Amino acid sequence: MQNSIGRLFTVTSFGESHGKCVGVIVDGCPAGLPLTGADIQKEVDRRRAGEGAASTTRREEDRVEILAGVSDGFTTGAPVCLLIANEDIKDADYESIRSKLRPGHADYTAYMKYGGFNDWWGGGRFSGRITATFVMAGAVARKLLDLIGVEIVAHTVEIGGVVAGPVEFDEIKKAGADPLYCADPAASKKMTEIIASTRQEGDSLGGIIEGIARNVPVGLGEPVFDNLDGDMAKALLAIPAVKGVEFGAGFAAARKKGSENNDPFIVRDDRIVTATNNAGGILGGISNGMPLVVRVAVKPTSSIAREQKTVDIQKMASTDLKIEGRHDVCIVPRAVPVVEAMMAITLCDFAMRAGLIPRVIK
Amino acid sequence: MQNSIGRLFTVTSFGESHGKCVGVIVDGCPAGLPLTGADIQKEVDRRRAGEGAASTTRREEDRVEILAGVSDGFTTGAPVCLLIANEDIKDADYESIRSKLRPGHADYTAYMKYGGFNDWWGGGRFSGRITATFVMAGAVARKLLDLIGVEIVAHTVEIGGVVAGPVEFDEIKKAGADPLYCADPAASKKMTEIIASTRQEGDSLGGIIEGIARNVPVGLGEPVFDNLDGDMAKALLAIPAVKGVEFGAGFAAARKKGSENNDPFIVRDDRIVTATNNAGGILGGISNGMPLVVRVAVKPTSSIAREQKTVDIQKMASTDLKIEGRHDVCIVPRAVPVVEAMMAITLCDFAMRAGLIPRVIK
Amino acid sequence: MQNSIGRLFTVTSFGESHGKCVGVIVDGCPAGLPLTGADIQKEVDRRRAGEGAASTTRREEDRVEILAGVSDGFTTGAPVCLLIANEDIKDADYESIRSKLRPGHADYTAYMKYGGFNDWWGGGRFSGRITATFVMAGAVARKLLDLIGVEIVAHTVEIGGVVAGPVEFDEIKKAGADPLYCADPAASKKMTEIIASTRQEGDSLGGIIEGIARNVPVGLGEPVFDNLDGDMAKALLAIPAVKGVEFGAGFAAARKKGSENNDPFIVRDDRIVTATNNAGGILGGISNGMPLVVRVAVKPTSSIAREQKTVDIQKMASTDLKIEGRHDVCIVPRAVPVVEAMMAITLCDFAMRAGLIPRVIK
Amino acid sequence: MQNSIGRLFTVTSFGESHGKCVGVIVDGCPAGLPLTGADIQKEVDRRRAGEGAASTTRREEDRVEILAGVSDGFTTGAPVCLLIANEDIKDADYESIRSKLRPGHADYTAYMKYGGFNDWWGGGRFSGRITATFVMAGAVARKLLDLIGVEIVAHTVEIGGVVAGPVEFDEIKKAGADPLYCADPAASKKMTEIIASTRQEGDSLGGIIEGIARNVPVGLGEPVFDNLDGDMAKALLAIPAVKGVEFGAGFAAARKKGSENNDPFIVRDDRIVTATNNAGGILGGISNGMPLVVRVAVKPTSSIAREQKTVDIQKMASTDLKIEGRHDVCIVPRAVPVVEAMMAITLCDFAMRAGLIPRVIK
Repeated sequence: MQNSIGRLFTVTSFGESHGKCVGVIVDGCPAGLPLTGADIQKEVDRRRAGEGAASTTRREEDRVEILAGVSDGFTTGAPVCLLIANEDIKDADYESIRSKLRPGHADYTAYMKYGGFNDWWGGGRFSGRITATFVMAGAVARKLLDLIGVEIVAHTVEIGGVVAGPVEFDEIKKAGADPLYCADPAASKKMTEIIASTRQEGDSLGGIIEGIARNVPVGLGEPVFDNLDGDMAKALLAIPAVKGVEFGAGFAAARKKGSENNDPFIVRDDRIVTATNNAGGILGGISNGMPLVVRVAVKPTSSIAREQKTVDIQKMASTDLKIEGRHDVCIVPRAVPVVEAMMAITLCDFAMRAGLIPRVIK
Repeated sequence: MQNSIGRLFTVTSFGESHGKCVGVIVDGCPAGLPLTGADIQKEVDRRRAGEGAASTTRREEDRVEILAGVSDGFTTGAPVCLLIANEDIKDADYESIRSKLRPGHADYTAYMKYGGFNDWWGGGRFSGRITATFVMAGAVARKLLDLIGVEIVAHTVEIGGVVAGPVEFDEIKKAGADPLYCADPAASKKMTEIIASTRQEGDSLGGIIEGIARNVPVGLGEPVFDNLDGDMAKALLAIPAVKGVEFGAGFAAARKKGSENNDPFIVRDDRIVTATNNAGGILGGISNGMPLVVRVAVKPTSSIAREQKTVDIQKMASTDLKIEGRHDVCIVPRAVPVVEAMMAITLCDFAMRAGLIPRVIK
Repeated sequence: MQNSIGRLFTVTSFGESHGKCVGVIVDGCPAGLPLTGADIQKEVDRRRAGEGAASTTRREEDRVEILAGVSDGFTTGAPVCLLIANEDIKDADYESIRSKLRPGHADYTAYMKYGGFNDWWGGGRFSGRITATFVMAGAVARKLLDLIGVEIVAHTVEIGGVVAGPVEFDEIKKAGADPLYCADPAASKKMTEIIASTRQEGDSLGGIIEGIARNVPVGLGEPVFDNLDGDMAKALLAIPAVKGVEFGAGFAAARKKGSENNDPFIVRDDRIVTATNNAGGILGGISNGMPLVVRVAVKPTSSIAREQKTVDIQKMASTDLKIEGRHDVCIVPRAVPVVEAMMAITLCDFAMRAGLIPRVIK
Repeated sequence: MQNSIGRLFTVTSFGESHGKCVGVIVDGCPAGLPLTGADIQKEVDRRRAGEGAASTTRREEDRVEILAGVSDGFTTGAPVCLLIANEDIKDADYESIRSKLRPGHADYTAYMKYGGFNDWWGGGRFSGRITATFVMAGAVARKLLDLIGVEIVAHTVEIGGVVAGPVEFDEIKKAGADPLYCADPAASKKMTEIIASTRQEGDSLGGIIEGIARNVPVGLGEPVFDNLDGDMAKALLAIPAVKGVEFGAGFAAARKKGSENNDPFIVRDDRIVTATNNAGGILGGISNGMPLVVRVAVKPTSSIAREQKTVDIQKMASTDLKIEGRHDVCIVPRAVPVVEAMMAITLCDFAMRAGLIPRVIK
């Protein structure tokens, strides 16, 4: 396992879904940043809030505790340790299906990789709950990015085939008020309907999340291998259920001609910008100052109420599986703040690498 | 800049498009691997060969030289250094347009990041020529993967909107004979036509490449951050012009229901496999033994013959730009062996991390 | 700050002397290792036990808690998080001297580096207490090294100028019974006396610790930069107060002739060994199978009862400083288990890099 | 093998003693640094010059070539590749002793680690010649450190038991004129004599080198693991024959009392300094602004003219070995510029980590 990401702003995740806690270490955070539990709690709550019609009923307090790295309300330069104690403890819910490999989950691969020793309760390290650790670290990153004016928002642009209409950045910021984090109210309504009907069917839905970062300084990214898009894609693919990542025009660029896809440079307010943004804010692996636009494909929730065919790994035989308990029909809304967090972690690391965030905040 | 990738199988790229050479260091290669210049040359030639109707006329010898790390025909355990001397030397071709930012290229971002000191001749470090260093390192990785039976092929599945039909793995392996690396002859013919007509228009085309790795051992990937898909996406996004990466069903998974997208586990030949492969061979960031399937979106070539609007960065004023010289209408075919190389580099590193490749080859 | 060490067996330390806790993450630990709190507690207790006549009176329970990474008594492959809650909470003891820079301590450098935001209570991250986190991680490393037969012991070879006589490895193992971890009873007695008299003087003492690892496999070390000695020296220099590290004959080798210092190779029991061990078990940065012998110089405790001259950093003026409270006259004995821990962490990482420890323990 | 060092200023060494070349990549060097082959050549020549009475007769041109990363006389931000072609090619000199393990050398450990595939000609990667790659990278580091006023000098303080008297920093700078890099002329004379007589005996000598860095900014070092002393010790132990490293009072501190060893803080010219420098410029792993003082123990040259007992690894039997050819009686003088180089590489990396060297030099 390798649970650290980031070269100068280094995030190390730990904990399990049904263990004692989930937690995260942020090493490399500059000293002097005002940081309270409430700063982190706010983001963690958004992750829980973004549930709406699609959500599971598991409700933990998810109370963030700062365990280390902060003194008198400011970061000290030492590693920041943030923790959420688990309240739901291992119960027999999952026991009955332990050896039945849940399709779409990491049960099989984790079993094989860790020789059956992996903590499988509730998915262990592979649970969506681990993304709470990403969000905690992302909250620290966002506070640092605030210092240089970088704004990050993500929103739901598609669920179950329902596509949200294009909206302005400032509208997207308001998407936080929507239960599905969708900035298009009409689409949100349709998404809610299809989620409801899919729940009736005992099935699940996927979707697409778009993340946008504004005021990104020109020059973030360290080619040829530590490209801004490359490292951001890696960070986003750490979110369970993400199966694809694209920047700017993305896959649609493959169908355009060069004359359409090239973004002409123009001078505006004494700065060089591009007239269009098919590049999604990244050229040659380096930010160009235009909004960074990334979209991630989220597969439908693997846990469904319907009976599924699978294998009992102990018996090496086919079996039927019915996953009990309630699960999110669609995890897209809950993943929206996680996308923001992974964008923030990546941008913060690159801003530090570019020397744009001071070692001591004053 | 950060020009190294891989934790145990570490690849460091250097050199410039119009400098003395392009080269690569492979550190961490086990001792005892038979390795000749011809092994590397073969892969480098494939990159040049995959040009067909789409290609530029620049024709260098691209002769691979082994500079270090091999003795008596075997790797020694020391870093392997592979070099291609450049023959086309800096000429005045580009001089006239130096301060005119080429749309779609890294001219602007590199200028800003490196204060104008970046080697801009032919794109310098941002040239497609740098991918020859990827291919050289990939050739070493492939030889190591051969030892454990991993096979990698990539092929062109879309150019200019022309989509190739689905083909079997063994057919795809034959795509190497097609000038566009397309395994569907009918589609290849249409692609060739649209490339020809687009050249007439002075425009360019993008497309989609699919890479497939077969016989990947179960268990490659180091969650939660060093996922197999995450690191592979990062590696693929180091290829210039790649704007999106997806695994298995990818973005299409976002529109499926869980009952459709989940791959049922079944037992076949005493092994657990999945009946379908929407996961593209990766569950929870770890390979599941099914074919690893990845697709990358390649944007249309940025250099086009048509006149474009841009900015002269010295004058901070709008200007017209006409890029002289011949450029590939579509770089997709040339990128096919590069996709294979980046897949091989990633898989080799993870196979070493999983302890599957011995420190000494006997 | 950079609080992680080790490439495959990665240890991340966090926490502060007078904060809520000190803790450590061990990432990369194979799955299937039996691990209990008692395994860790045993080593932590040795660190506290090694106090004898030299020790401070601060007595915390130092109860180790396993927070993550272990399930049903076995490691899961996930990051192992180990924690010791602090009981002594920040009090006014130190407040009065906050702005007076304690000579020999990191007060000044930490103040300058972290802009005064560093947690200075009890030294914060620079306290000897942080070495409890090293010992916890070392306990995990030792359990893994046990699997391949590597034995590690350290002992006190000098305190206050009193030098212990040479002893056999098996005698050294018994040093654990001595309050000063000294294997020479006569020397231990003299050391105890000089410690007592130095306490009377309000002064402090330094010394030398020798660490020995036996049954180290041939071939650990990754030249030319990740040498076994290089990485071990780095690990040992993370122990506060260590000012020098030498291997085998070390500095004495500088005064020998080649004919004296070269260890002749001989065949014994069908294995190649050396007749002498001036190399301390390392040739060319790689273990040669002979006992690995390392010595570290520990400076005298910086906190002394005597009045000292220093600077008040707020007033930028000279001042007198009298450090209240009780402090160890000599930290050498307490550092002995820490030396073992850092040796274990280093050797475990290199054993994993050499592929000698399986990914799953069965 | 792991041939890279440095987090932001990353040095990758390659090449073999008797292969085509020895070379180095410097990745992370800021753009805009004026850099010519002569800048590098100067340092490489010092390494050869520091031979005096102690030196081998092998005389290569050692002409430095800049292969990449520099354009129009300035670094571009791309990886800088520096190369020295080898002129002495593999001959039969060593062939006769191939299977006889040379005592003190890495022949045995390299054979075992790399399964006999290691390039053993002239020691391959384990040859002192590899330090030319360190010196090349160090030359780049020094140019960057010049920008912030850091001065580095090393000098011979002991050879064959002859100890140089203490000298001032400015005198040490003149040591470069001495054939043994010794700043004490009387000692140098005696060293020369003992070297001559030892050569007659067919034996060899070791010694001690002291390195001093002045004007080091306060605050370099990233505790608790990436301490300035820890990383510098690791870098210095990459120099073949180095068996010990100490900072400031080093091992002598182990015999001092706290009241003697603590350096009192005082205010001088509005800056806080220490009245003495037993700490050698480092407190808590962080530079304190005082001169950084480090000493390394160099063992006597392993290759001696006398007959030695050893093992023939093919026959697994005892044998006699007589090493032909001429070898340095004492490599200490040649190692002096290498010590400076490793200090420079380490300090440069930490200065970059502290944000003290701009990404673009103007």
